Amino acid sequence: MYSVAYLKEFTLNVFEKMGCSPEDAKMATDVFIAAELRGYSSHGMIRIKDYFQLWQAGRINVKPDVRIVHESPSTAVVDGDRAIGMIASTRSMEIAIGKARTAGTGWVSTRNSNHYGFAGYYSMMALKHDMIGISMTIANPLVAPTFSVSQMLGTNPISVAIPAGFHPPFVADFSTTPIARGRLAIAAKKGEKVPLGFVQDADGVPSDDPDIITRGGSMVTLGGTAEHGSHKGYALSAIVDIFSAVLSGANFGPFCPPSVAYLPVKEEKVGEGTGHFFGAMRIDAFQPPEVFKSQMDKWIETFRAAKPAKGHERVLIPGDPERENEKRIGREGVDVIVPVQKEMKEIADQLGIGFDMK
Amino acid sequence: MYSVAYLKEFTLNVFEKMGCSPEDAKMATDVFIAAELRGYSSHGMIRIKDYFQLWQAGRINVKPDVRIVHESPSTAVVDGDRAIGMIASTRSMEIAIGKARTAGTGWVSTRNSNHYGFAGYYSMMALKHDMIGISMTIANPLVAPTFSVSQMLGTNPISVAIPAGFHPPFVADFSTTPIARGRLAIAAKKGEKVPLGFVQDADGVPSDDPDIITRGGSMVTLGGTAEHGSHKGYALSAIVDIFSAVLSGANFGPFCPPSVAYLPVKEEKVGEGTGHFFGAMRIDAFQPPEVFKSQMDKWIETFRAAKPAKGHERVLIPGDPERENEKRIGREGVDVIVPVQKEMKEIADQLGIGFDMK
Repeated sequence: MYSVAYLKEFTLNVFEKMGCSPEDAKMATDVFIAAELRGYSSHGMIRIKDYFQLWQAGRINVKPDVRIVHESPSTAVVDGDRAIGMIASTRSMEIAIGKARTAGTGWVSTRNSNHYGFAGYYSMMALKHDMIGISMTIANPLVAPTFSVSQMLGTNPISVAIPAGFHPPFVADFSTTPIARGRLAIAAKKGEKVPLGFVQDADGVPSDDPDIITRGGSMVTLGGTAEHGSHKGYALSAIVDIFSAVLSGANFGPFCPPSVAYLPVKEEKVGEGTGHFFGAMRIDAFQPPEVFKSQMDKWIETFRAAKPAKGHERVLIPGDPERENEKRIGREGVDVIVPVQKEMKEIADQLGIGFDMK
Repeated sequence: MYSVAYLKEFTLNVFEKMGCSPEDAKMATDVFIAAELRGYSSHGMIRIKDYFQLWQAGRINVKPDVRIVHESPSTAVVDGDRAIGMIASTRSMEIAIGKARTAGTGWVSTRNSNHYGFAGYYSMMALKHDMIGISMTIANPLVAPTFSVSQMLGTNPISVAIPAGFHPPFVADFSTTPIARGRLAIAAKKGEKVPLGFVQDADGVPSDDPDIITRGGSMVTLGGTAEHGSHKGYALSAIVDIFSAVLSGANFGPFCPPSVAYLPVKEEKVGEGTGHFFGAMRIDAFQPPEVFKSQMDKWIETFRAAKPAKGHERVLIPGDPERENEKRIGREGVDVIVPVQKEMKEIADQLGIGFDMK
C-alpha cells in the first residue's frame, strides 16, 4: 500500500522532471491521483509509463500553449498544443466553466490533445461551481459499429456530474461499450474466457476470447448484439466521436492517435491529435440552486428506495461505488500491483528521482 | 394505404376540432406525420386516440400559453401550460435555436408538457439552421434501474441530429432500453415470446414473456444485464430524466404522468407535468460550417467503408433506415393497421369530420 501523498509526490516529480511547469505537473498529477482514489486504477499509476514513453519519443509537448482558437459566448474550440491530455482537458473544462458563468452554459471541443485519463475528473470540476459537468472523449479504435468487424471507435466514455443538496452528487462515468478495455486485458493475462457479448471475431461472430481483439476481432458497442440494441451504443459512441473530434478538428474514429508510444503514429491524419468534449451548465440558469438541489435529493432518495432485485441488497445511484472506493482508498492507501511498481521504479531511475518498491 | 396528404388533413382536422389554433394544429400534425414517414408508426396515427381521450378527460390544454419562465443567454426553462407535447416541444426547440443564434448554443428544459412523440423531429429542426440538434424526454415509467425490480424510468429516448455536406445528415434517435415499448406490445398481442434481455420478472429474473411488465415485471436498461453494462443504460436514462424533469421542474422518474387517459393521474406530484430537454449548437460556434460539413462527409464515408460482418451487406450511419423509410412511404403511402383505422373512424365520428376506412 502506498499513501496518496507518496504517489502524489512521485507523480509530481515525474512530470516536473519531464519538463512540465509546477502548475502543469500538479494539474496532471491531480487527475492520476483522483483516478486511483475513485478505484479506476486502469487510469492511474499504470498510465504514467505511457506518458513517460510518449515524452521520450517526442510525441507530447511539456511546454504547451493550450489556447482558444475559436469561440462564441457559450462555446470554444481549444487547441491542446500536443499537451498531456490531463492538462489540455483541465484547462478546457475551466474554459467551459468560465463560459457558463456568463452565458449560462459553456461547451468546449478540444483538439490536439492526448489520452485524458479519467473522464469523471473533468465533469466533477463543475460541481463546486454549482454547475452540471459533462465530459467525453475519443479513445484508441477497438470497437466495431453494429453489423461491422472494423475497429472504428474507441470505448468513448461519457461522464455527467450533477450536484445534489445534502446527498453526495450524481456522477455517471461510463464507456459506451459493455465493458472497459482493461477488463479484457486482465482476462487475457489470466488466460480466462469472457462472457459472450463483449467481443466478436474477425467475421463478427460473438467470441469468449478476450485476446481476439488483437487477432482481427473487435469489441462491440453497448447493447452487445443488434437484437439487444448495439446500434444504440454505436450511435452514442459516434456522437462522442463527432462532438470530440469533428467539432474540434481532431482525428476522429479510426484515425484517433495511439495513446502509447509502442504503437506508431498513424500515417493518415484527418485532424490534429486526440479530441475531447466538455460542458458546464449553471444550475441557476435553469432553477434556483436550492430548489434544484432539494429536488435532486428527492430524486436520489426515490431511486435509493427502489425495490432491489432478488439477491441484491440495494439500488445504486451513479457515483456510489466510486465514492465508497474514495473513502476506503483514502483511508487504507493505494494498492499498486508489482508490475506497475516496477515500471514506476524504472521511470524513477531514468529521471533520477526516488521510488520505493513495496 | 393512405396518402400523406390525406392523413395530414385528417390530423389537422382532429386538432382543430379539439380547439387548437390553426397554427398549433399544424405544429402537432407535422410531428405525427413525420413519425409515420420515418417509419415510427408507434408514434404516428396510433397515438391520436391518446390525445383525443386526454382532451375529453380535460387533461390537456388546447389553448396553451407555452412560455419561458426562467432564462440565461444560452438557456431557458419553458412551461408548456399542459399543451399537447408536440406543441410545447416544437416551441421549446425554436427557443433553443433562437438562443443558439446569439449565444452559440441554446438549451431548454421544458415542464408541464405531455408525451412529445417522435424525438428526432425536434433534433432535426436544428439542421436547416446549420446547427446540431439534441432532444430527449422522459416517458411512462416501465424500466427498472440495475439491481432493481421497480418501474422507475421511461424508455427515455435521446436524439442527436448533425448536419453533413453532400451526404444526408447523421440522425441518431434511440431509447435507452434494448427495445422500444411498442415491440413488447406487438409480441404480447401476437402471443409471442421475446428474447431474454428485454424484460425481467418481479424478482428480477430475465423473462421471455413480453406481458410480464403488466404483472410485476419491468423492462431493463440498455446493456440488458449488469454483466453486460445495464448500469450504463441506467445512468444514461437517469441523465435524460434529470435533464428533462429535474432541471425543468417536471415530474421525474416514477412520477412521470401517464400519456394515456385510461390511466389515472398520479396522486403524488413532484413537479408539473412531463419534461423534455432540447439543445441546439451552432456549427460555426465551433468550426466554419463548410469545414465541419466536409469533415462530416469524410466521417460518413469512413464509417460506410467499414467492413461488414459476415451475413451483412453494409454498415449503416444513424438515420439511414429512417431516411429510406421516408422515401418509400412518401412514394407508396402510409399503411395504417385496421385497429388504428377503427380508432380514427371513431374519433372522426365523434368530432363530425370525415375518415374513410380502407
